[in-house]
Amino acid sequence: MQVSLTADEIAAIVRPQATRGATTEAIRTIASLEDAAAGDLSFLGNAKYKPQVASSKASIVLLPLDYDGEPAPNQLFLLLERPSAALAQLCIRIEQALWPKPAPGIHPTACIAPGARIAASATVGPLCVIEMGAVVGERTHLQAQAFVGRGATVGDDCWFMPGVAISAECIVRNRVRLHAGVVVGADGFGYEFSGGRHVKVPQVGIVVIDDDVEIGANSTLDRARFSRTVIGEGTKIDNLVQIGHNVTVGRHCIICAQTGISGSSTLEDYVVLGGQVGVSGHIRVGRGAKAGGQSGISANVEPGLSVNGTVALPYMLERRIQVLRKRLPDLFKRVEVIEEELKKSSAQ
Amino acid sequence: MQVSLTADEIAAIVRPQATRGATTEAIRTIASLEDAAAGDLSFLGNAKYKPQVASSKASIVLLPLDYDGEPAPNQLFLLLERPSAALAQLCIRIEQALWPKPAPGIHPTACIAPGARIAASATVGPLCVIEMGAVVGERTHLQAQAFVGRGATVGDDCWFMPGVAISAECIVRNRVRLHAGVVVGADGFGYEFSGGRHVKVPQVGIVVIDDDVEIGANSTLDRARFSRTVIGEGTKIDNLVQIGHNVTVGRHCIICAQTGISGSSTLEDYVVLGGQVGVSGHIRVGRGAKAGGQSGISANVEPGLSVNGTVALPYMLERRIQVLRKRLPDLFKRVEVIEEELKKSSAQ
Amino acid sequence: MQVSLTADEIAAIVRPQATRGATTEAIRTIASLEDAAAGDLSFLGNAKYKPQVASSKASIVLLPLDYDGEPAPNQLFLLLERPSAALAQLCIRIEQALWPKPAPGIHPTACIAPGARIAASATVGPLCVIEMGAVVGERTHLQAQAFVGRGATVGDDCWFMPGVAISAECIVRNRVRLHAGVVVGADGFGYEFSGGRHVKVPQVGIVVIDDDVEIGANSTLDRARFSRTVIGEGTKIDNLVQIGHNVTVGRHCIICAQTGISGSSTLEDYVVLGGQVGVSGHIRVGRGAKAGGQSGISANVEPGLSVNGTVALPYMLERRIQVLRKRLPDLFKRVEVIEEELKKSSAQ
Repeated sequence: MQVSLTADEIAAIVRPQATRGATTEAIRTIASLEDAAAGDLSFLGNAKYKPQVASSKASIVLLPLDYDGEPAPNQLFLLLERPSAALAQLCIRIEQALWPKPAPGIHPTACIAPGARIAASATVGPLCVIEMGAVVGERTHLQAQAFVGRGATVGDDCWFMPGVAISAECIVRNRVRLHAGVVVGADGFGYEFSGGRHVKVPQVGIVVIDDDVEIGANSTLDRARFSRTVIGEGTKIDNLVQIGHNVTVGRHCIICAQTGISGSSTLEDYVVLGGQVGVSGHIRVGRGAKAGGQSGISANVEPGLSVNGTVALPYMLERRIQVLRKRLPDLFKRVEVIEEELKKSSAQ
Repeated sequence: MQVSLTADEIAAIVRPQATRGATTEAIRTIASLEDAAAGDLSFLGNAKYKPQVASSKASIVLLPLDYDGEPAPNQLFLLLERPSAALAQLCIRIEQALWPKPAPGIHPTACIAPGARIAASATVGPLCVIEMGAVVGERTHLQAQAFVGRGATVGDDCWFMPGVAISAECIVRNRVRLHAGVVVGADGFGYEFSGGRHVKVPQVGIVVIDDDVEIGANSTLDRARFSRTVIGEGTKIDNLVQIGHNVTVGRHCIICAQTGISGSSTLEDYVVLGGQVGVSGHIRVGRGAKAGGQSGISANVEPGLSVNGTVALPYMLERRIQVLRKRLPDLFKRVEVIEEELKKSSAQ
Repeated sequence: MQVSLTADEIAAIVRPQATRGATTEAIRTIASLEDAAAGDLSFLGNAKYKPQVASSKASIVLLPLDYDGEPAPNQLFLLLERPSAALAQLCIRIEQALWPKPAPGIHPTACIAPGARIAASATVGPLCVIEMGAVVGERTHLQAQAFVGRGATVGDDCWFMPGVAISAECIVRNRVRLHAGVVVGADGFGYEFSGGRHVKVPQVGIVVIDDDVEIGANSTLDRARFSRTVIGEGTKIDNLVQIGHNVTVGRHCIICAQTGISGSSTLEDYVVLGGQVGVSGHIRVGRGAKAGGQSGISANVEPGLSVNGTVALPYMLERRIQVLRKRLPDLFKRVEVIEEELKKSSAQ
């Protein structure tokens, strides 16, 4: 993000307790201490990078109060209790510049079916399609080319990026952020094998996405066979994640990229799944359980347990096995040696 | 899906052989015995849930003929030979309400290039793009924002959800259902390394999708280097699946979510692949073979064989290894003990 | 791809050093020796298929100069030094027919915001959205329904297939080909856990895609927390790949389908990752390193090293372990036998 903020504007945002030095540069971007050039702002968020401050070319550096070095010419040090929190404040301000609040209204190229209800404060961007009976809530922003199907409901203060598709009758509650290409409410994957063919089992349930959920680009969430596929309040889902039909994801879970959860499984609250994890169908993952990247979970996981591996095992056991696995060639040799020795001794 | 069906309407659909009790509630949704509330219909599809019937709050319950309990007040039991089949009948009816047959015609916002041929009975929804020379068959329904490229052919009775893209010259036969975001005919991933750079190998083949195929949201199917990438009749593909160039998938296969099949591999008929399976290039998976979730298939699989694991092994062998794997720390200790003992005995 | 080229037209493209036989068939497609029918062109690219030439039904066959068989009636042999190179020439020509150069201009249904700058030689297809301040370079082609966000920059000679979305401020350099559904610049997946909730860390950096990159369908590239997510010159990325925030991918890398790279990791130049590989966060994969399909990389990889497996190990070690893994049931039995024997001998 290219911004342009003067040293004074930045000081007004981060409110340093002390300053050292001065710069005439306007800040155009944020960079690490090592990568920063003139016009960049940097920060010391982790003590291990302290040696990099002295050689950093950043025009402004956010530093902890106890930092005692001196700035270079045309360099400004802003001293604060928590440089990371100050950086976050700055990022929020930059985010507002990056994504300014859009004016309410419906773009003339959007297709709104008769009987759709769009709140007056909502923004429906170019080339969106809102089908019959759909509802779009207050201050919700559909960026562009989004689709809201027949009878679907989108709550207040949501933000859908380009190409998001919400299928018929699905429900998205409030303050939900869906990134580009998210598909909510594709059919669940259900067939019955009959007469040598897979006969489709109709998928007539819906998806419900609760408040404050965020879902990453091109993730897919299937509608229930009947009843509901549910994503609980505050849960964050990364890109390219697959949520099967009738899955229940609890509140405040974290699901990293490319993970897949098969039909009818349940994640209780505060579950954390790494990237590329697979969860089999009809599994229950207990509250606060964690799974490492690429784990395969094919049995229930106790609340609070950390698991890893395929098939997933308790974290420390899997770690031990990973170490021993490397020594398998050695173990096979050792057993051979033993066998030889026993043969010799029995031959005596 | 929210519907509203009276008890009489439901009885007309499922045709019970006997009834017990009565309800004045209109049925709004289907739910499990345990989750059901007033206004819900439930069913006993599996004998193990029989104890839940007595306490179910469902207004209507579909039950097998031999069920002998009594309904609660304002509760109706419908007794049938096969409650699951009756439920399926009901779901088909609800599906028709969920997805009513659209009126034929081309939405005024759709972009139809000169020379595209759209059947009179087809429905082309808002903001679709049909390029020059493309063909859309009888009763086919493009929901919205779909793309059919130059010279591509879509057969009869297909249904494409929002954002489906069919690339130039590809062929989709009849009764094919593509969920939102499916990409048919992206370039195969082929390069030749020359002069320190990867030089693109043109991908000038096509994709052919045969009758009665269904493909889940955001799945991708690459066009052949030359000739054809083929998906056989009746095959069902889940979400986020990758089909490489020149792959041949046989008839009536099942490919679960996030599975990837590398270039030039062949699945014979009736193959079943779990979720997140990887198939290497130039592999043949025999008729009726099955692979468990997250399997890595890097060698041919015999017809009818079930495999699992990475690298995939016959199912029972992999299961045995998964058990032994957990006991590796123990095995290493046992071998150490043996070595100690032998050392002592040889020292004597 | 269906073309129609006479024998003379094909000879003019591939320039054979000698010919044998003749055909009156026009060539409509390319096929393997085995699959070819009348009207197909085939080729002998690999000596092991030599026995198939004699029985091939192809109307034209590209053959090495030293091939000494005779063509069938109505069959033409074109003899060349490198049949594969000749085939590539032919494919390039077919590709040009498949994707003819579009006329420059902006389709009347495209939404171009005030202040967007579109080069006069660019082609903006139907139903594209170009937001305020975005730039589209010379001869760049947006096929249809693409999105270029506020202040984003697309260079010269790019080609974006339907539904590509470039988020605000991101930079795509020159000759970049993005397949359908690619999302550039979704938010990175960053939260801080506070008060029992995951609080969003603003993602205010951008994505920079350098010259000559190609990215497959429905892949997703996240914008940096701050600073840049970078894809280096000449790198080729397959379908459904996930690139996390602040990742740096070097020049001329190959990343196969469904691979995911977690936040802040770096691939140096010429890295090759197979399909479904997972790279943990904050990892460095050295120049020219290679990882097999489904590998899990959770520690730095030395330049030039080939790794495989989860957790990834050097290629030959992993291969040995995969063999021994199959023999684990046998090893456990052998150790039991040894233990029995020792027990017996100590009881003596």
